[in-house]
Amino acid sequence: MTIPGTAAEAKQELGRTRRGGRAANAAKRGGDGPFSQPPFRRLRVPFPPTRLISDDELEAIHLASLRVLEEIGIEVLHDEARAIMRRHGADVRDDTQRVHFDAALVMEFIAHCPSEYTVFARNPAHNLSMGGDSIIFAQIASAPNCSDADNGRRPGNQADFRNFVKLAQMHNIIHCLGGYPVEPVDIHPGIRHLECLRDIVTLTDKCFHIYSLGRERNQDGIEIARIVRGVSPEQFRDEPSCFTVINTNSPLKLDVPMMEGIIQMATHGQAIIVTPFTLAGAMAPVTVAGALVEQNAEALAAIAFSQMVRKGAPVGYGGFTSNVDMRSGAPAFGTPEYMKAQIVGGQLARRYGIPYRSSNVCAANTVDAQAAYESVFSLWGCIHGGANFVKHAAGWLEGGLVCSYEKMMLDIDLLQMVAEFLAPLDLSEDALAVEAIREVGPGGHFFGSPHTQARYRDAFYAPLISDWRNYETWTQAGSPTAMEHANRLWKARLAAYEPPPMDAAIREELDDFVERRIREGGAPTDY
Amino acid sequence: MTIPGTAAEAKQELGRTRRGGRAANAAKRGGDGPFSQPPFRRLRVPFPPTRLISDDELEAIHLASLRVLEEIGIEVLHDEARAIMRRHGADVRDDTQRVHFDAALVMEFIAHCPSEYTVFARNPAHNLSMGGDSIIFAQIASAPNCSDADNGRRPGNQADFRNFVKLAQMHNIIHCLGGYPVEPVDIHPGIRHLECLRDIVTLTDKCFHIYSLGRERNQDGIEIARIVRGVSPEQFRDEPSCFTVINTNSPLKLDVPMMEGIIQMATHGQAIIVTPFTLAGAMAPVTVAGALVEQNAEALAAIAFSQMVRKGAPVGYGGFTSNVDMRSGAPAFGTPEYMKAQIVGGQLARRYGIPYRSSNVCAANTVDAQAAYESVFSLWGCIHGGANFVKHAAGWLEGGLVCSYEKMMLDIDLLQMVAEFLAPLDLSEDALAVEAIREVGPGGHFFGSPHTQARYRDAFYAPLISDWRNYETWTQAGSPTAMEHANRLWKARLAAYEPPPMDAAIREELDDFVERRIREGGAPTDY
Repeated sequence: MTIPGTAAEAKQELGRTRRGGRAANAAKRGGDGPFSQPPFRRLRVPFPPTRLISDDELEAIHLASLRVLEEIGIEVLHDEARAIMRRHGADVRDDTQRVHFDAALVMEFIAHCPSEYTVFARNPAHNLSMGGDSIIFAQIASAPNCSDADNGRRPGNQADFRNFVKLAQMHNIIHCLGGYPVEPVDIHPGIRHLECLRDIVTLTDKCFHIYSLGRERNQDGIEIARIVRGVSPEQFRDEPSCFTVINTNSPLKLDVPMMEGIIQMATHGQAIIVTPFTLAGAMAPVTVAGALVEQNAEALAAIAFSQMVRKGAPVGYGGFTSNVDMRSGAPAFGTPEYMKAQIVGGQLARRYGIPYRSSNVCAANTVDAQAAYESVFSLWGCIHGGANFVKHAAGWLEGGLVCSYEKMMLDIDLLQMVAEFLAPLDLSEDALAVEAIREVGPGGHFFGSPHTQARYRDAFYAPLISDWRNYETWTQAGSPTAMEHANRLWKARLAAYEPPPMDAAIREELDDFVERRIREGGAPTDY
Repeated sequence: MTIPGTAAEAKQELGRTRRGGRAANAAKRGGDGPFSQPPFRRLRVPFPPTRLISDDELEAIHLASLRVLEEIGIEVLHDEARAIMRRHGADVRDDTQRVHFDAALVMEFIAHCPSEYTVFARNPAHNLSMGGDSIIFAQIASAPNCSDADNGRRPGNQADFRNFVKLAQMHNIIHCLGGYPVEPVDIHPGIRHLECLRDIVTLTDKCFHIYSLGRERNQDGIEIARIVRGVSPEQFRDEPSCFTVINTNSPLKLDVPMMEGIIQMATHGQAIIVTPFTLAGAMAPVTVAGALVEQNAEALAAIAFSQMVRKGAPVGYGGFTSNVDMRSGAPAFGTPEYMKAQIVGGQLARRYGIPYRSSNVCAANTVDAQAAYESVFSLWGCIHGGANFVKHAAGWLEGGLVCSYEKMMLDIDLLQMVAEFLAPLDLSEDALAVEAIREVGPGGHFFGSPHTQARYRDAFYAPLISDWRNYETWTQAGSPTAMEHANRLWKARLAAYEPPPMDAAIREELDDFVERRIREGGAPTDY
């Protein structure tokens, strides 16, 4: 038997694809590269999201969050943002920077949010459908460190950053980038966004995120997104081609770079995913319900503001409510409380008709059973919570402090399994197999039956990590754990990377822009 | 920080409980033993099960399975069973042992199945509600081997058998035994059922399973269940107090011990959980739909037969459809195909109004990430499939070939997390926390707020295995994985076992019965 993920297997797969044999199959499944994998596809959840609480209970959270916005208000640190809010009817007190929002005012602007839209990639095959029953998986973002089993944990750097970006491009189940998978601290912060975005848009042809860390970075990112799409500013404004995540400063604070990000992105018609970071017991009440009230108040305020800037601006409603370890204050993820918050968060987003963002996260320090169960619990909450956009879908370890090569491969496998679970069940006459059952009859077996022979190659999802060998064979092979399989796999995969094509004129325009902006000194670093 | 599961922690917990301090809390949470844990409680799923396929699609599976029963039929090896079937209108051909069932006949008898019933334990606090929105977790059954991280893998034996039975008793989240957690092969098979059942009914006071391996074993088990309940045969017949699992010999065969088990259990009013073992590509068609057709045909035949024996006999509809590794034929579990089969299996069971049985299973060889993700995927399928009875809920490893101490503790933690996820969300005015949010205000923090202080001890589920320490502290502690935490935990827990009380007269009656049956030579071993 060939161990999945070894170089030998990669070679064998390559051979099969080239030889024919499995080629037709590989092509059908999107195996257009050196290894076979399911195609890039629009994933849809074939069942309605779970309702963990009743509509009346949901209304209680909704009304409580409107009370927070009316009675307590939000601190808005950005002068122009407050001016925009005042112009649109909010009660702004400049001395305290506090803004109170009337419930009707909030709901009036929330009503302008589009419930579904497309995010355009430079490769149209990688466009994303945001909202409805679609679900999008985005790679991990913003880890300060990275790690692999061979070389351990280290601060982020450009070489690892590029490796992770390549893995995102190679795997069809990663629909888009979510940010910088790891922060390359060896690049000066003033020009980091320019170097990183140039890498992302050349090493991949998928949609991507730009950080809202000051006006210049937003504007540079937006221009890079426009250049690689090769469209006019006017067309670009109607075709969201990048997105940003706006984290509120919980509790109840909206800072300058975040407000600036909303203004820039909304003005240019780019997508804004508002995500309060409401850890119950730290930045939010210790009760899940209370943390959701705060999450909802902050999300509604920032989303309503985006619609004040531009009615119909494409937005997402993000939930990141989880609990903390009450002994240390450290965030916990993939917990029962996190799952509840994920599912009720989805109920809230759908109440407002806004695409919902959640995450595949864990608090584990290594790729052990804990990492797996916290992640699968998170994915469970995503799927049944009706998440449309799953951030940190692959690679996240240690509460987000690490982007792990092995976790990346584990998550890719988990995501592919979830996608297979969501794929429609074939219920054709042929699949129901009454004739095959008749033919085999009582006490027979199906291994050799024509019905099996015609289908067995593609009948089941073939996992990347799972070791299904019997105990004796597995022991003889050195008792490898999932961690070891994942370690072999990322190296084999990365070795097979090929960059996507890019039009030479676009490449030149991109390089000219990036070089000019670098010469100009990039962006201020006092954010 | 105290590492969960160490002896020191067990002692500390004990101290806390005795001192008061956390005593009230411990009592509230059911911490009536030497460690705190959630109470034994009836778990209910607060949302409707997921419908993976439409009602029309479900009907296609239903109709195809009725065609199998009508046109192909089932081989029934038990003479008396065939006679009973003939008496009730089935088309029995004794020369081939083949029985064909008219669709209307099947549905007429299926209609007699009770949709909900109680299974009575000798401790009434441990009675089980079967059906409806209830979910019951049963310990692993029938593993030939056991293992722990210290002493490795070994054949089952009485000492380990007893340890696992004790762990089942100690943990409130394990609602009942599922069989012998590990097969004690050091006890002669003729008297094994007597020794094992005596252990189970004295070391625990929870509901239990008896194996259908010949008439004598069923009758002995039934009598033991009656004795420990201390009730008359008449009362016992109306109060199911033990259960058996009937596995069909897929495809389409019902053997002598299984038919005998149905006859004995139905006659005595004890619960019968019919579970075809339909591995797609081996004993069933390679398509999930085809395997479900076969599962459904076999389940309907055996369940209808139970109602021919006694109308209203308490039954369960079991699904165990999964796929196999097409390279080796080894069963795979916790796969996307398994989850689909779990959820559609639940739709089928509910179509017939019969309580649904599923399982928490995996194919991993060790307690690594694979074991965790396959198990959580299985639990996901159980919960959203509307399973009422989850067999193998704790301890299962290696496709059921091993009962693992560490996996037992991991699963206990996973099950407790699932139970916490299912627990109702507090949406009281107080939990919504608008006043706490007002008091803390923008930019503040909730750690020290009175709202947090009053609740933090019980606000969140405290996991047994998860290591939430930061990377530095975790590294200094030797980078323990979930496997190592689980290893420490089972030893600490087992050391704190105390047997449940048993009335002296009942104990005497039990011992008299068991000793007499042992003197008589037990049961035939030629099954």
